[in-house]
Amino acid sequence: MKKQITILFVLVAGIFVASAFKDKPTQVTVSSKDSDSIAVTKIFEEVLVNGKAYDNLRTLCTEAPKRLSGSAGAQTAVDVTFRMMKSMGLDSVWLQECMVPHWERGTPEEGSMIVNGKSTHANICALGGSVSTPSDGLTAEVIEVSDFKELEDLGKKKIQGKIVFFNHPFDQRKASMFDAYGEAVGYRWAGPHIAETYGAVAVLVRSMSSSLDTFPHTGVMRSDSLAAKIPSAALSTVDAEEMHKQLASGAKVEFNMTMNCQWYADTKSYNVIGEIRGSEHPEEVIVFGGHLDAWDLSPGAHDDGSGCVQAIEVLRAFKALNIKPKHTIRAVMWMNEENGGRGGEAYAKYSTDNKIKHIAAIESDAGGFTPRGFGITGTPEQKAKVQSWAPLFFRYGIYDFTSSGGGADIDDLRASGTPLFGLEPDSQRYFDYHHTEIDTFDKVNKRELHLGAGGMTALVYLIDKYGL
Amino acid sequence: MKKQITILFVLVAGIFVASAFKDKPTQVTVSSKDSDSIAVTKIFEEVLVNGKAYDNLRTLCTEAPKRLSGSAGAQTAVDVTFRMMKSMGLDSVWLQECMVPHWERGTPEEGSMIVNGKSTHANICALGGSVSTPSDGLTAEVIEVSDFKELEDLGKKKIQGKIVFFNHPFDQRKASMFDAYGEAVGYRWAGPHIAETYGAVAVLVRSMSSSLDTFPHTGVMRSDSLAAKIPSAALSTVDAEEMHKQLASGAKVEFNMTMNCQWYADTKSYNVIGEIRGSEHPEEVIVFGGHLDAWDLSPGAHDDGSGCVQAIEVLRAFKALNIKPKHTIRAVMWMNEENGGRGGEAYAKYSTDNKIKHIAAIESDAGGFTPRGFGITGTPEQKAKVQSWAPLFFRYGIYDFTSSGGGADIDDLRASGTPLFGLEPDSQRYFDYHHTEIDTFDKVNKRELHLGAGGMTALVYLIDKYGL
Repeated sequence: MKKQITILFVLVAGIFVASAFKDKPTQVTVSSKDSDSIAVTKIFEEVLVNGKAYDNLRTLCTEAPKRLSGSAGAQTAVDVTFRMMKSMGLDSVWLQECMVPHWERGTPEEGSMIVNGKSTHANICALGGSVSTPSDGLTAEVIEVSDFKELEDLGKKKIQGKIVFFNHPFDQRKASMFDAYGEAVGYRWAGPHIAETYGAVAVLVRSMSSSLDTFPHTGVMRSDSLAAKIPSAALSTVDAEEMHKQLASGAKVEFNMTMNCQWYADTKSYNVIGEIRGSEHPEEVIVFGGHLDAWDLSPGAHDDGSGCVQAIEVLRAFKALNIKPKHTIRAVMWMNEENGGRGGEAYAKYSTDNKIKHIAAIESDAGGFTPRGFGITGTPEQKAKVQSWAPLFFRYGIYDFTSSGGGADIDDLRASGTPLFGLEPDSQRYFDYHHTEIDTFDKVNKRELHLGAGGMTALVYLIDKYGL
Repeated sequence: MKKQITILFVLVAGIFVASAFKDKPTQVTVSSKDSDSIAVTKIFEEVLVNGKAYDNLRTLCTEAPKRLSGSAGAQTAVDVTFRMMKSMGLDSVWLQECMVPHWERGTPEEGSMIVNGKSTHANICALGGSVSTPSDGLTAEVIEVSDFKELEDLGKKKIQGKIVFFNHPFDQRKASMFDAYGEAVGYRWAGPHIAETYGAVAVLVRSMSSSLDTFPHTGVMRSDSLAAKIPSAALSTVDAEEMHKQLASGAKVEFNMTMNCQWYADTKSYNVIGEIRGSEHPEEVIVFGGHLDAWDLSPGAHDDGSGCVQAIEVLRAFKALNIKPKHTIRAVMWMNEENGGRGGEAYAKYSTDNKIKHIAAIESDAGGFTPRGFGITGTPEQKAKVQSWAPLFFRYGIYDFTSSGGGADIDDLRASGTPLFGLEPDSQRYFDYHHTEIDTFDKVNKRELHLGAGGMTALVYLIDKYGL
């Protein structure tokens, strides 16, 4: 589009108008509403013009990709973000210890689809926490189900000795891809164990993705006492469609897979924390952050490098604008969200043990895409208060304060009555990249990331000013 | 993020709830409000699940990239979209003739920045409509200005014989990148001519882009009686930053450029039109579309292949859902939006000559990104009526009906009092790709494109049902 070219003349005229007024600043009485609007505008402008979140994300993704809990990458990520915050002149930057699970996928997986005896390469990756196949691989016939009801209907007799293929595509009718994910992810989480109880020898799960491509999407499966003891992998959506087509045509489909994953002893790791102490109530905390760990296949740009650097940006913007918060504002990069949640647990335990009062907890863990709103979990009064601030955010495209929200890392603070917030970016592209090797830095747009950081900063500012 | 894993149990429980109810459809009295909600939901679901806009866009970008007016690519685009609509069983598909300007850039441009005598490659492309340099190139000293005021202050004496470099970056404080574009694009449109009046021998314009990269962004400059007769090119933002840095450091910066653009005689071309005739008022028309031409450097995926295929999708969805519109609904792929607007003029002239009443005109020419709202230009009553429909769109992320809107191709219908609408997608990424070789099909997300098409379809449906 070429758009209004006439704007030029407005612009030229504007120069003269501006000159005429420049020596006559008008006296204005600023109401509280106006001053909020001015402050919020200043915050967004600071982040959009001088924000460092994008550069910090490039650093994190370059220096510490594949930062799954227990890995060398995770330790590098701790070091990198600690150093980032140390250089900012904050009141305190510290590490909070936690023991994390340590699982490794080993050498790259190999998968082949065998249709009526003819073998072709298929794109798979082990689900997080899966056991190995035998070292020379595993081959068995594939049986497809689209949900647990079909599994039940087939029964043990038909499933025994086979590879169960959970093929539950994202429901494209949903407006939010998180809703589609929420409906499908149960097959990844519990599917392996449930299939095992019917005698399956392995599980393939259609990748949790809204698009058709050849990248398998890893992700966690349950690892408690009901953890599956059979090899379990994600299959790319393109391969899943092909397998479905072959099975529907009546072909005999077998699958050969080789994986050599392994569990190791729990490992010491850390949440990385930086804060500006409150000038009036330093003992009361507004906490915000994302998770530092990311899947071992991935640079973790959207999931969740974005949330981490946005949290750091909130602190940077407060410093740059010389805003002195009344309450302590604290950025946390939580460890181990992806396969255990130990960082969130450690933070909650520390909070209980030290009787920390949290005024609010905000998580950004839905990608560095253009922000749409905040989900809120709190009392109706708290929700109404935050919704009354919505007009301040509207011009920046943040308009939706209707849903409930939070995040896995802050969920343990719910018990203490802390109001929880989740930044809600546009969801359409998130699952194109989620838990894959293509969740790379170049998939993040600087302005979209910074608009989200601006929204978080403005929300923290308003909560600090008015309480909840 | 791993998100609520507990959803699984809701899902399993859901099976039983669903089974319990499945034989007992409840009798419901459907109010008009409810029926609108049901219809709008059906429309979005049809487009999200079965939409063909994405596949059609792939076809258009593959078979007819570089479809600037007068080119072979433009003719192919006419043929391709005509065939697409011909295959859909519409009531009428036709071509509307218009004569279009025909300019070609010739062989790829060459540019070198010469800093204190040392030459390095620089990324440039001719602005649309520019004249050639001498065949062996043009070299002159560069003088930088950030706006027209600086040009005026420097005056003829300092500018004579030089290359004027308009370096007016996008204002990153703006929330909408269209606002930033509107403020900067005047330097591309009128800068060459104005610099020429001061004796400049050529013009370089900082590319109209929100990001820093090495792709020059072409675009139209004025081609009327005030068209510049000096070579005029866009410089990539990375090169513009480098040039600015060198000039600011006091270095002597010259530039060497070679371009062999040429104007040809006006060429016959077409708007491509498809329609479903109204069952009650076939003589009254709701028109919607995008422009078929795209810059010669570019596949034109977002600008504006997206708008074209979304318009076709509106017709497809009406057919698929068996909705019989009361008024004629018409998709137009306008020709020559980028450098002349002759398609829009031809359509408006046809409408006047034939006394066509347009109930509404809708343009999609801001990219195939996730939709945010519709701009509306109409009476306060018309605007209020459309705004009363906003709740129907909210769950699909379309919430903003506040701004005025329309589009270059439908602007000529304003004189007849036609209410104008512009689909408003998220603007943050649009100018990363705009008018460059990287405005490619892979930059478009299927769901985002289809959400926009769903929004247009729902709007057409409601306008047809209730009038304006």
